[in-house]
Amino acid sequence: MAVEFVKNAVGRMIPTEINGKPVIPFQGVGKYRPTGRKYAPPVATSADYPSDGNKVLPDLKTALLKAGIKDGMTISTHHHFRNGDLLVNELFRVIAEEIGTKDHVWFPSASFPCHEPLIKYLEDGTIHHIEGSMNGPLGRFTSQGKMRGVGVLRSHGGRYQAVQDGEVQIDIAVIAAPEADPFGNCNGVNGPSACGLLGFALADSQYAHKVIVATDNLIPFPCIPWQIHGNYVDYVVTMDKIGIPEKIVSGTTEVTKSPDRLYIAELTGKFCEAAGLIKDGFSFQAGAGGTSLSIGIYFAEIMKQKGIKSRFVRGGSNKYLVRMLEEGLTDYILDGQTFDLDGVRSMRENPRHINTSPFTSYNYHGKGNFATLLDIVILGATELDVHFNANVVTHSDGYLLHGIGGWQNCLFGKTVILPVPLFRDRIPVIRDEVTTICGPGELIDVVVTERGIAINPLRKDLIEATKDSGLPIKTIQELKAEAEKICGKPQKPQFTEKVIAAIKWVDGTVIDVVRQVKEN
Amino acid sequence: MAVEFVKNAVGRMIPTEINGKPVIPFQGVGKYRPTGRKYAPPVATSADYPSDGNKVLPDLKTALLKAGIKDGMTISTHHHFRNGDLLVNELFRVIAEEIGTKDHVWFPSASFPCHEPLIKYLEDGTIHHIEGSMNGPLGRFTSQGKMRGVGVLRSHGGRYQAVQDGEVQIDIAVIAAPEADPFGNCNGVNGPSACGLLGFALADSQYAHKVIVATDNLIPFPCIPWQIHGNYVDYVVTMDKIGIPEKIVSGTTEVTKSPDRLYIAELTGKFCEAAGLIKDGFSFQAGAGGTSLSIGIYFAEIMKQKGIKSRFVRGGSNKYLVRMLEEGLTDYILDGQTFDLDGVRSMRENPRHINTSPFTSYNYHGKGNFATLLDIVILGATELDVHFNANVVTHSDGYLLHGIGGWQNCLFGKTVILPVPLFRDRIPVIRDEVTTICGPGELIDVVVTERGIAINPLRKDLIEATKDSGLPIKTIQELKAEAEKICGKPQKPQFTEKVIAAIKWVDGTVIDVVRQVKEN
Repeated sequence: MAVEFVKNAVGRMIPTEINGKPVIPFQGVGKYRPTGRKYAPPVATSADYPSDGNKVLPDLKTALLKAGIKDGMTISTHHHFRNGDLLVNELFRVIAEEIGTKDHVWFPSASFPCHEPLIKYLEDGTIHHIEGSMNGPLGRFTSQGKMRGVGVLRSHGGRYQAVQDGEVQIDIAVIAAPEADPFGNCNGVNGPSACGLLGFALADSQYAHKVIVATDNLIPFPCIPWQIHGNYVDYVVTMDKIGIPEKIVSGTTEVTKSPDRLYIAELTGKFCEAAGLIKDGFSFQAGAGGTSLSIGIYFAEIMKQKGIKSRFVRGGSNKYLVRMLEEGLTDYILDGQTFDLDGVRSMRENPRHINTSPFTSYNYHGKGNFATLLDIVILGATELDVHFNANVVTHSDGYLLHGIGGWQNCLFGKTVILPVPLFRDRIPVIRDEVTTICGPGELIDVVVTERGIAINPLRKDLIEATKDSGLPIKTIQELKAEAEKICGKPQKPQFTEKVIAAIKWVDGTVIDVVRQVKEN
Repeated sequence: MAVEFVKNAVGRMIPTEINGKPVIPFQGVGKYRPTGRKYAPPVATSADYPSDGNKVLPDLKTALLKAGIKDGMTISTHHHFRNGDLLVNELFRVIAEEIGTKDHVWFPSASFPCHEPLIKYLEDGTIHHIEGSMNGPLGRFTSQGKMRGVGVLRSHGGRYQAVQDGEVQIDIAVIAAPEADPFGNCNGVNGPSACGLLGFALADSQYAHKVIVATDNLIPFPCIPWQIHGNYVDYVVTMDKIGIPEKIVSGTTEVTKSPDRLYIAELTGKFCEAAGLIKDGFSFQAGAGGTSLSIGIYFAEIMKQKGIKSRFVRGGSNKYLVRMLEEGLTDYILDGQTFDLDGVRSMRENPRHINTSPFTSYNYHGKGNFATLLDIVILGATELDVHFNANVVTHSDGYLLHGIGGWQNCLFGKTVILPVPLFRDRIPVIRDEVTTICGPGELIDVVVTERGIAINPLRKDLIEATKDSGLPIKTIQELKAEAEKICGKPQKPQFTEKVIAAIKWVDGTVIDVVRQVKEN
């Protein structure tokens, strides 16, 4: 291969070509300026669609064949069912066993452990490679160098950007819809498989050449709310069951009981208060882990004490956010995906629980997006380095095990705080250099650990505001040294030269690559 | 001029070029097949927008200058305020008096008598020509041959199609918003100037190069519902008052008292019942005239008697439709524009009163649209001919006085009924040939007059279903002869050769042109 490598703006060596397409290396935050136009799908005509609005076909196979499925086509799906998805495995079973086309690119908005059965379709040539998160088993398979193409990981906003800008051209989108009408209007809030919303499928509906809606709950027109508009949909098929909504649960649904994690949550809350970030009309995104839930609850307590409320909270929604909305502690939940069934119920019933999409929340190639308006953003990381760069996709052993999700997009919030344990399984989290750079340190403001808080030197305002707070403020180097005193200096993972995945930045440039793990 | 004329599929002579752009003559219903791609606006980047989301500028002039206004640019507006709009006159005053650019194309979704002051900007060169309806004074001005360019009239769906397909490229869209936030999210349901919804501005927001939101009610982010997404918006400006919501009232708000019109309404209702069109789960669009209101009330009575309800009614909403929704006689109102303040209130409060746009309802170059799903469509016409062709834009004296609105789009409903008086001011409505063809006769199923009902011979099913109904079914020739017996054969209007306006069909082809009236 004549592929060369160039160093990008965070010092990582990036191939000039991935999966046969040219690559733009990361140029720094806000530096790359797109000059092109949005992707333009073909103009359709109503003359080609049934005038009675009935687009129902007997089954997925028929719909895929009518959509003109061919070898090499890009097939997209969404992940609102998370680990309860029942559509994707069936979709590729139909393609592999009943149709027989090969070399597809699977373009999910995310994948989950439930998609482990797709490994056989990666092995038998049905799927060439995945562009989307590779969580768990699919990530391990990829890290072992077994996928033919290079995986491409994008943030939720980056996925919208890639579709909008035509970097990824979706041939056939298949949308799992808890409620749909024969015209193809659909939503996620109603029906026996209700999962909340369908925002991750918005780009697919707008830009894919052919769009198939699969539902287990077909109702007469109009399906309201029409979160996805039937005017973008070609065919509708029914299935027995498209997903298991109980399995959409993300993270934990209970606050942490670990004393260290509780202390990290408390420190985070105290830091936000000391820095003056918790004030009437503020906004925040907390996340769904046990520590994050504790932080959200801490914010709620502070608001009650102060008699203030937040203007909006950003979800992934769960019962804790819903309770805040119902208690009047926030005007709105702006929700990108529901993380439990309380979230689904609230979105269905409460007009202040708002369905959003990566277009409104995260797309960097729009005229702004609302992620930048959040006052406090709480995020996680698998690793951090002394420059505040962070990793969310690989573990310190080098394996690619997580997707980016909305993480990169949320880095644009006004104050970004990463509460992390100083070490996990006796492996320090703060390193000299992260295994994979997913987010540049200049966007990460504060790291909170059980041994102290490090503020990014760029945020002089936060340093000033908290200097007399009595909080254990330290440098990130001090935190790293403390961890290494306890656990020792960690080993670096061992890789081969083979690039197995690329990490896109929010603007479509490549910020890092992941290499095959050298297994002994 | 080297412009030639060719005969289109309804026998009208169409120039090969209009305003310097090539023309596709109408080829028949469903015959023209688009082969291109949708219009692709430039890719934006969030790096160019304020990270705090505050896009507010001091005034319209500043926003227009920042948007790069230049001679010849196309400026779009929407008409949800109808005859109560206060933005457009001010907009062109600013352009003419404070900026001084010339030769603009004004691309409104409709114009109203309140826009008569724009005549001076047509005369002084600020506006070159109008693409959009020319109601009342602007239409008369145009019919007198005084506008420099050729007016282009499109249906609401045709306007979406033209923007989507790039036939019209909007340089600057200015959206009057009753509620907006600094990021540009906006809606029509809240605030002192609430007009209901903003669906007619959807295409403008999606495809214009620069989008300005003008509001008299700026609230903190997030403005919910965000009928228009701030992610499409460049600048926000505030004004004292953007519109007078009391003047959105369209047609009459009272049922007709004319015995002839009441009889037409009764005949229409009886016809629908005899033909078996009024059944549980049916749908209809009635319209806002006095006769139409009576028909809607008739439908409501029948439903109550039969103990059935409709699945949806299509609005323009008014107090009568709202009452039907509130009484449970329909599951949904699918609303394209509110015609009175009861409509505004209902849309704000009732989750079954649904905000639609020309994209969902009317765009012919989508994957279908819901206008085709309506069981009964009641429309008006200024003239009809013996081939059931109909005219809605010119009067029998040749003057262009009305826009197309959603009329052409609604012709695709399952049964299209035109209740019209046999004559107006002693001028027969049914002619040998309509002055201007706006809709081909094959799409018009039934004409109801005070002297009888004519069914299009193509609708053998309706003829069969109503043959023993006792209703006064006649041929359209018989109706025409009756009118001429009373009023005499009408004079044809006199025109010069000069084409002053083109009538687009829903697919972007030209179905007819309007010529300058010969005034003596």
